[in-house]
Amino acid sequence: MPSNNNEQFFIGIDGGGSKCKAVVMDANNTVLGTGISGPGNPYHGFEQATNSIIESATLALHDANLADIPLSSVIVGAGLAGVNLPILYNKMSSWSHPFKSMHLATDLLIACLGAHKGEDGAVIITGTGSCGFTNVNDKTLMLGAHGFPHGDKGSGAWFGLQAVKQVLLALDKIIPPTSMTAPLLARFDSNNATALVEAVAGKPATFYAKLANLVFDEAERGDDTAKAIVLDGCGYINRVAQRLWQQNPPRMSIIGGLAFRVVPWLQTEIANRLSAPLAPPEVGAVLFAKQQIALTDIATTSLN
Amino acid sequence: MPSNNNEQFFIGIDGGGSKCKAVVMDANNTVLGTGISGPGNPYHGFEQATNSIIESATLALHDANLADIPLSSVIVGAGLAGVNLPILYNKMSSWSHPFKSMHLATDLLIACLGAHKGEDGAVIITGTGSCGFTNVNDKTLMLGAHGFPHGDKGSGAWFGLQAVKQVLLALDKIIPPTSMTAPLLARFDSNNATALVEAVAGKPATFYAKLANLVFDEAERGDDTAKAIVLDGCGYINRVAQRLWQQNPPRMSIIGGLAFRVVPWLQTEIANRLSAPLAPPEVGAVLFAKQQIALTDIATTSLN
Repeated sequence: MPSNNNEQFFIGIDGGGSKCKAVVMDANNTVLGTGISGPGNPYHGFEQATNSIIESATLALHDANLADIPLSSVIVGAGLAGVNLPILYNKMSSWSHPFKSMHLATDLLIACLGAHKGEDGAVIITGTGSCGFTNVNDKTLMLGAHGFPHGDKGSGAWFGLQAVKQVLLALDKIIPPTSMTAPLLARFDSNNATALVEAVAGKPATFYAKLANLVFDEAERGDDTAKAIVLDGCGYINRVAQRLWQQNPPRMSIIGGLAFRVVPWLQTEIANRLSAPLAPPEVGAVLFAKQQIALTDIATTSLN
Repeated sequence: MPSNNNEQFFIGIDGGGSKCKAVVMDANNTVLGTGISGPGNPYHGFEQATNSIIESATLALHDANLADIPLSSVIVGAGLAGVNLPILYNKMSSWSHPFKSMHLATDLLIACLGAHKGEDGAVIITGTGSCGFTNVNDKTLMLGAHGFPHGDKGSGAWFGLQAVKQVLLALDKIIPPTSMTAPLLARFDSNNATALVEAVAGKPATFYAKLANLVFDEAERGDDTAKAIVLDGCGYINRVAQRLWQQNPPRMSIIGGLAFRVVPWLQTEIANRLSAPLAPPEVGAVLFAKQQIALTDIATTSLN
């Protein structure tokens, strides 16, 4: 396909803690193909992350029938969890990547750009972790995204950890019985606190996040302890939304694996102001790369 | 010292997560010497724990001027954190130890036996971790001791983690400012949430426990957020004490590095019923070994 050699292709990368998603797009923002590989979060290993980025990009080119396009001709936008930490941003920036160019952003910025098709806006993310983010007039504000177990209230990991805590207190008869106890113990084929502790000891955020739906299920069935957890976590999301609106974003979306469980528990006026996300984060990564290139072009033009 | 060869010596071991303490006692419960070595908690490594037990025992014999006494002549009582988990109890029980005999108990049982000089009673422990324990009419009840971050409310690690959580929320302006922020950031030479998150990410219970005094300091100076944490944690200790009294222990003590900070915040009637501990856990370990031997003697006598 010689015509491909004259066309500039873009790859968007969304590198998270469990998987790395890639999308190939052309100059007109048409999606041509996608690819998924393993963890792409440099927080959990630089080698793993860079391998996953190359693998997902290669898979996406194959999916787009562009396997003959060399990586060295492609412009990449990459949004990676963790690069808000300077040590990880510097490490990823110094990577001798195989692409024509790579434009590095946080996972939050590309999620926000994707949700609002490159325009200003705000996002609340609640999946394994949680955070809030606004991007208005080239100014960004990040709330949360502090990690487990010291932050990320209202995230899947947070809800799961609260469930384990409260069930252990109920088994000790420090608090009244909760209907979360039976399904939580059953999940680990355990029948007492000791067995539950053995099952959860030392486990990471991803483990606890898998328990989050159980909390919402029991809250919706009327369990007081589960309801208190859900109201506490969703109360935090309410406050995050209020803080984000203070930045006057034109739109706000909530995304992430737990979003559809959280929304029914938010304050009505906050839930009603949420808009559907328009594109996924990996598309936002391409939009980011194009914005960076446009900025460079403007700077070059004004120098001439 | 040939006379020593005719006398039975006992060594008590208190094996915790940061250190292993040993005491040498004679048949009359006179303390002859003590020794301290590294971590003695099999939860963090079987080799480390068994090495620490032998080292602390050897040091205690030296301290008692009994270096000529072979370990193979000594009766040992060992109370080890973690052996309430069956997998660790079985592992420690199968150890080919160098002693005449070794009687294995949890750290909680020997702490309780020590606090009440071998008699029935209850203990609340709040140091790096937290738990409650009663030993009445040969029946024991354990509350808590579930570990970090899913349990151990009211422990040093729990107080420290709450401080980090609340300071991160305050830095995000999700909650009002707290006077804990300045000293916590200063502790890590940081001046923002990102630097604080870098300092605490992935840290264990022992790290967070070092922050507990800061919470009590600011609570006592009147900071509302710190006071709320302290009242929540100490409210849990109140409920643990109430649950333990339901077992009708003759005495109750509170021990551990954070006990003196917690007591002033307990309900007055609960604080007033607490008795001073009479001996440390390692002495309780010797009392445990002697009780086990007495039980064996009774069983042997009744068989004859």
